[in-house]
Amino acid sequence: MEVGFKSALKDCHVGVIGLGLMGGSLAMALRDAQACESISGYDADPNTLDQALQRGIIDHPIDLRGDRVDVLILAAPVNAILDWLIKIPAVFSGNLHVIDLGSTKGQITMAMQALPDWISPLGGHPMCGKETSGLGVATPDLYRKCLFVLAPLDRTHATTLTIAQQLIDVISARVLILEPDRHDQLAATISHVPYLASVALVEAALQAHDDAVWEMASSGFRDSTRLAASNPTMMLDILMSNQTGVLAALARLQTSLDTLTQLVQQGDRAALQGIMDAARSRRTTLFT
Amino acid sequence: MEVGFKSALKDCHVGVIGLGLMGGSLAMALRDAQACESISGYDADPNTLDQALQRGIIDHPIDLRGDRVDVLILAAPVNAILDWLIKIPAVFSGNLHVIDLGSTKGQITMAMQALPDWISPLGGHPMCGKETSGLGVATPDLYRKCLFVLAPLDRTHATTLTIAQQLIDVISARVLILEPDRHDQLAATISHVPYLASVALVEAALQAHDDAVWEMASSGFRDSTRLAASNPTMMLDILMSNQTGVLAALARLQTSLDTLTQLVQQGDRAALQGIMDAARSRRTTLFT
Repeated sequence: MEVGFKSALKDCHVGVIGLGLMGGSLAMALRDAQACESISGYDADPNTLDQALQRGIIDHPIDLRGDRVDVLILAAPVNAILDWLIKIPAVFSGNLHVIDLGSTKGQITMAMQALPDWISPLGGHPMCGKETSGLGVATPDLYRKCLFVLAPLDRTHATTLTIAQQLIDVISARVLILEPDRHDQLAATISHVPYLASVALVEAALQAHDDAVWEMASSGFRDSTRLAASNPTMMLDILMSNQTGVLAALARLQTSLDTLTQLVQQGDRAALQGIMDAARSRRTTLFT
Repeated sequence: MEVGFKSALKDCHVGVIGLGLMGGSLAMALRDAQACESISGYDADPNTLDQALQRGIIDHPIDLRGDRVDVLILAAPVNAILDWLIKIPAVFSGNLHVIDLGSTKGQITMAMQALPDWISPLGGHPMCGKETSGLGVATPDLYRKCLFVLAPLDRTHATTLTIAQQLIDVISARVLILEPDRHDQLAATISHVPYLASVALVEAALQAHDDAVWEMASSGFRDSTRLAASNPTMMLDILMSNQTGVLAALARLQTSLDTLTQLVQQGDRAALQGIMDAARSRRTTLFT
C-alpha cells in the first residue's frame, strides 16, 4: 500500500545498514537527539550487530524479510553499497528514502537510477572519516561541523532532500550539493590522492633499504603518512570506483612533483619559494 | 691561553646562537635543569634577544667582541650556520666546542673542517621540529624523547661527544650517530621529501581550479599537508644544502607513485592491496 514519502524525520523508522564508524556514529547521534521514531540496524558482522543492540545504539535489528523502514541509510564500503542497491527492492516495501554514505558517488548514483519508483535515492558523503574504523571508535560527535556532500539525482524526491537536511541538522554537519562526477573529482584531489601519496611516502622509505630511516621518523612523517593507516579494503573500493577522478588528480600531483624536482635540480630558489609560499599561504588559510 | 676542552657541561659557559624554536627551547631546558655555568645568547632579531633576556631564558647576550664561551650551539637555519662557521674563529677565543642543530649535515660538517684546531666541531640534528617557529613557541619540553642525530668529524674531540651526550641527557633526547651523508639521505626520505609531497598536494589541489575542493578538505588533507605550513626560507636552505639526497629520495617517491598509477589504471586490486597493506603495516608499527 502506498503511504507516500514521509517528510518529517521524527515520524520515520530509520534503518542503518553497516554499523561501523560512520553508521554507528550516525545511529548514536540520532538516538541521543531522539530524532526519529525508531532506529533499526544491520551489520554483516553478527558481533557488531549484537554490540549495537546491547549498547542501545539501535532499537532492533532490521528484519530482512520485510521490515517497515522509511529512511534507509547505507553506511558500508562502496562495493557493499552497490550490492545493497541491487537487494533493496526485494527486501523492503513501501515508500522508502535511501541515502548512502559512500566515499565515491559516480557508480553509486548510477546504480541508484535502476531502483523502482517507490524508492527515492540520494547520494551522500560525509567528509569526516578517521583512519580507524569499526563500532568501537564510533561517537555521536563524529559529524559535528563536518561537511556532508549531497549528490541528488534527477529522480530524487524533494522530501528526501528535506529528510536529509533534517538528519544533517541533527548531527550538526553542513551541506554541500555537488554533482556525482564533480564530487568524485574533488574527492580524488582532496582525499584519495593524498591517501596514495601517503602510501607512496612509506613505500619510498621502505625502498631506501636503511632501517635507520625509521628511527629518524618524527611528527612530520607521522602526520604526512597518517592516511596510509586507512583500511586498505575500504580504500581499494574507493580507488576502483573512482579511477577516472583518481588518475586525473594523480597526474596533477605528479606534474607538481616534476616541477619541484626540476627546480631543486636547477637550484632555482626564487621559483621554488614562489610555489612553497603559495602552498603555505593556501594551507594556512584553510586550517587556522 | 689554552685551558683545554672542558668535559663537564656543568662547568661550561654555553652560548646559543639563534633563539628561535630550537635554540630558545634548548636554552630553557638547560636553564630549568641548571645544567651549565651560564647561558648566553644571540639572535639576529634584537626583539627576540630582548625577549629572551626579559624572560630569563638566557643570562646575558653573547658579547661578540670576545666572550668566554666553552660550548657554542648553532641553532639557526642551515645558511646562517654556514655563515657563522666562517665568523666564529674571529669572534671567540679559547678552546671551544661547537655543536650545530642544522637540518642537513653534509655542507655544515664540510665547513666545520676549516675551523682552527682550538675549536672542536660536532654536527647535530635534533629531529623535533614543528611547522611553527620562533621563541614564542619554544618550550623546554621540545626535545623530550626526540632523536638527536650526531654526525662527528674525524677531528671532533672526544670531550665534545661527552658534552653533547650530557646535553642530550639533560633535554631527555636520545642519540643516533650517523655519517653526514647518510644523515642527509635519510633526512631527505623521512623529512624533506614528505615536505615537498605536502607542498605538491596543495599545489595539485590549486591546479584543480575548483574552489569547492577547499570546502571538502578535512582532517586527512589537513594532516597530509601540515608540513606545507613550514617556513619556506628555512626549507629552501634545507633543500639547497641537500640537493643530492633530496633528488634521490624524490626519484624513489615518483617511482612509487608511477607504480600506484599504473596499478589503478590496470585495476590490479591484488597488487595495489599488497603495497597498501605493506605501507599500512610499516606505518602502524612505527607509530603505535
